Amino acid sequence: MIDFPDLADIVESTPSKIVMLVVDGLGGAPHPDTGKSELETANLPNLNRLARESAGGRTVPVLPGIAPGSGPGHLALFGYDPLKYFIGRGVLEALGIDVPLKKGEVAARGNFATIGGDGLLTDRRAGRIPSNEAKPLAELLNTIEVAGVDLEVRHVEGYRFVLVLRGQGLSDKVTETDPQRTGAAPLPVKPLAPEAWKTADAVNQFVAQAREVLSTQKRANMVLLRGFSELPSFPNFGKAYKLKPAAIAAYPMYRGLAQVVGMEVIPGCHSFEEEVQTLHRTWKEHDFFYIHYKYADAAGEDGNFAAKVKTLEEMDAYIPRILELSPDVFIVAGDHATPSIMAAHGWQPVPFLLRSKLTKGEGAAAFNERACAAGSIGTIQAQHLMLLALSHAGKLIKYGP
Amino acid sequence: MIDFPDLADIVESTPSKIVMLVVDGLGGAPHPDTGKSELETANLPNLNRLARESAGGRTVPVLPGIAPGSGPGHLALFGYDPLKYFIGRGVLEALGIDVPLKKGEVAARGNFATIGGDGLLTDRRAGRIPSNEAKPLAELLNTIEVAGVDLEVRHVEGYRFVLVLRGQGLSDKVTETDPQRTGAAPLPVKPLAPEAWKTADAVNQFVAQAREVLSTQKRANMVLLRGFSELPSFPNFGKAYKLKPAAIAAYPMYRGLAQVVGMEVIPGCHSFEEEVQTLHRTWKEHDFFYIHYKYADAAGEDGNFAAKVKTLEEMDAYIPRILELSPDVFIVAGDHATPSIMAAHGWQPVPFLLRSKLTKGEGAAAFNERACAAGSIGTIQAQHLMLLALSHAGKLIKYGP
Repeated sequence: MIDFPDLADIVESTPSKIVMLVVDGLGGAPHPDTGKSELETANLPNLNRLARESAGGRTVPVLPGIAPGSGPGHLALFGYDPLKYFIGRGVLEALGIDVPLKKGEVAARGNFATIGGDGLLTDRRAGRIPSNEAKPLAELLNTIEVAGVDLEVRHVEGYRFVLVLRGQGLSDKVTETDPQRTGAAPLPVKPLAPEAWKTADAVNQFVAQAREVLSTQKRANMVLLRGFSELPSFPNFGKAYKLKPAAIAAYPMYRGLAQVVGMEVIPGCHSFEEEVQTLHRTWKEHDFFYIHYKYADAAGEDGNFAAKVKTLEEMDAYIPRILELSPDVFIVAGDHATPSIMAAHGWQPVPFLLRSKLTKGEGAAAFNERACAAGSIGTIQAQHLMLLALSHAGKLIKYGP
Repeated sequence: MIDFPDLADIVESTPSKIVMLVVDGLGGAPHPDTGKSELETANLPNLNRLARESAGGRTVPVLPGIAPGSGPGHLALFGYDPLKYFIGRGVLEALGIDVPLKKGEVAARGNFATIGGDGLLTDRRAGRIPSNEAKPLAELLNTIEVAGVDLEVRHVEGYRFVLVLRGQGLSDKVTETDPQRTGAAPLPVKPLAPEAWKTADAVNQFVAQAREVLSTQKRANMVLLRGFSELPSFPNFGKAYKLKPAAIAAYPMYRGLAQVVGMEVIPGCHSFEEEVQTLHRTWKEHDFFYIHYKYADAAGEDGNFAAKVKTLEEMDAYIPRILELSPDVFIVAGDHATPSIMAAHGWQPVPFLLRSKLTKGEGAAAFNERACAAGSIGTIQAQHLMLLALSHAGKLIKYGP
C-alpha cells in the first residue's frame, strides 16, 4: 500500500462504484515521420468525447526513466509502491500460464539453452527454438523426479518454461543458474540462507537430470533457471480500501496479479468482449472493477505502430458499453507505455483520464499523452491514482483537523 | 521541517522580506455549466496583473486525492511534512477559539449528543442544536469538578465544545468515547499507555457527571469526546529558516497554528483590513509575514460559487496595499482547495504565484488553476514552497560543492 499513515481512518465504504480500465502498454511516443503518437493518430471518438468530461493526467509508473514490467506497472495502479512490493519472475511466469501457486511453493523461470562439448554456453536461448519443438521437451522435463520434492515443469512459449517446486521446507533464497553470458558454464544453485539448502539441492539434481534427458538434443541440450520466487504476502486491496473488488481479465497473468493483491478474480473471459459482458453481469456484486485490455501492448511490443493504432480504435468502440453502467468514477489508465518506436515497454508517463460528477467542467482536450499532460490533474505517481479514485467516489474523508 | 539534510548549512539571514498571503480554500474547480473555476470567473485585475510578473505553479498539499484539514494544509505551506507533523483535533479546536494551551495540557473535541432511555446513541450531534441552546449547556459542564485535575469546558459553535484538562501527570494517549455511529453506547475512555491512567479516569468521571448534569435535556443529554491531544513539539520555524516571522490572522485557529510552529503572533486583528494595517505597522520588525485571508474557504464550504467569487474579488482589492511595501518575495498561496461544487475541502492542486526580482520575465498568464498549472514552476509539493520563497529572497545558498 502507499505510504500513507492511518489510511484506514479516512477511507469509508459507500455505495459508489469505480471502474478502472487498464489498457496494457497504453502510452506511446510520437512517430518520427508524423510527430504524432499512437493515441494521437488513432480515431477515438468515444475516448476523446469522454476526455472532455474528465480530469486528465499522466502516471509515472515507478520513476522517470524506469520502464516497468507488468508486475510493477499494475501494482502501482493498485496503489502499491512498486519499489517496496515485488513479485518474482518465477511467480509471474507461473501466474501467466495459470499454474496454481500456494504460499511456500517456489517457482522459477526456465530457458532452454545450448552448451558445447566443454559444457560452456553457446546460446542462452537455444536458438530461440519454436514452441512446437520446445513443448515436448518441457513435457520430458516434467517426468524428472527428485526425492522429497514435487516438481512441475510447464511450457510457456518458445524457449521458455516454468519450474515449480512443491513440498515441505522450501525457500526461494537461492542463486540462479544463468551466468547471463555465453562462454561461461551454467552455475550451480547455492543457498542464500540456511533454510534454502533443501531447495538448492533439489534444483541442482533437477538440472543434472535435465542435462541427461536433453543430451541428445542439438540446440536445447541444457536448461537455465532464474527468478526463484514464492507467492508474496501483500496487504489486501479490498481490506485496505474498504472495497469489494472484482478483477476481469482474459489473460492469466493479470488475473494472477489481481489474485496476489487479494481481488476476487472473475473467471471465464477469453476476450475483451467477454470481459465487458462479465462487467455487466457482475455489476451489482462489486464496487471496484479492474478490467484489463491486453492488445495495445502486444502491438507495441511488435513495433507495429499501425497495429497499435488499430487496437486502440477497437478498444474505443467498447467505451459506450462501459459507460452504460454509469460508474461513479471511470478511469482509463495504463500500466506502462509500450511505444511502437521502441518495440518494448517504455518509461514514458502514461496518459489517464478520470471521470466523476466533479470533473464535468475541467475536461481534457483529448485522450492522448500531450492533452493529458495538460489536463487538470497533471503528472502524478501511478501509486497515487487509487487515492484520486477513492476521493472522486466520495470514499475518502478529510485528512487531519 | 522538510526532509532536507543540513538545511541550516545553506540558509542565511539577510535583510530581504517575504510575504506569504495564505488564502484559505483558495483553489476551486470549474463549474459544470461554464467550465470556469471561481478564480477564472472572478474579476481580479490586481492578481492577474501580478501573475504576469510572477512565477506560477500549483501546490499539492499532502498527496493527490487527499483533502487536508487546515492543520496539514498550513503546516505544508510552512515547510513541515504534513504526514510527519500532526496537530490533534482537540488542540486545533482549542486554538480555534483562543483557549490558551501549554505543554502537558490535554484538549479534546466535544460534541453534544442524544441518547435514548437504553443509553444508546440516537444522534451524535444532538440534532445539531444551535449555539444559543448549546452555550449555556457548555457553561453548565464547565462547573463540573474532578479531583486532581483542572477542567475547562468552552463552547465552540453549534453542538461543538472543547474540554481542556490541566494538571500534573496528564497524557493524550487515551481512546475516544465516540463510537462513530448511532445505535451504539458511548465508549468508556481507556488508557493507551501506562502514564495515561489518570487522564482516562478523570475523563470518565467528567462524562459520568456530564450525563447527570444534562439528564433533563431532551436533545443534548450526553457528550462525546474525541481527538485527545497535547500541544506538539515541532522544530521552530524561525530558527530553522533563520527568519523573524510574524503571523497576522483574524481567526484564532490560524494564530494557533502559527504559534505551534513558533512564529510571533501579532494580536489585535479582527478583519483582513486590520491584518493589512498590521502588516504595514510591523513591517520593520520582521522579515517573514504569514498573513491569512479566511473568507474564500467559508464561501466554498457553503457551496456558494458566486459568494466565493465575490470574496476573491474583495481580496484582490487589497493586493496593491500589500505591494506598496515592496516585499522582496510576495507569495499568494492556499492551504487547500475548497471547490464550491464540492462544498468541502478538496484534494485538487492549489494555484500559487511567487513574485521576486527574478520572476519579471516568466509571468503566468493569469491567477487561476489552469494558468498556474502552466506557470514556470509547475506542480510541486506544498512543503517545498518555503524553499522557493527563501531562494527567491536570496536566503538559500548553493547546496553541495
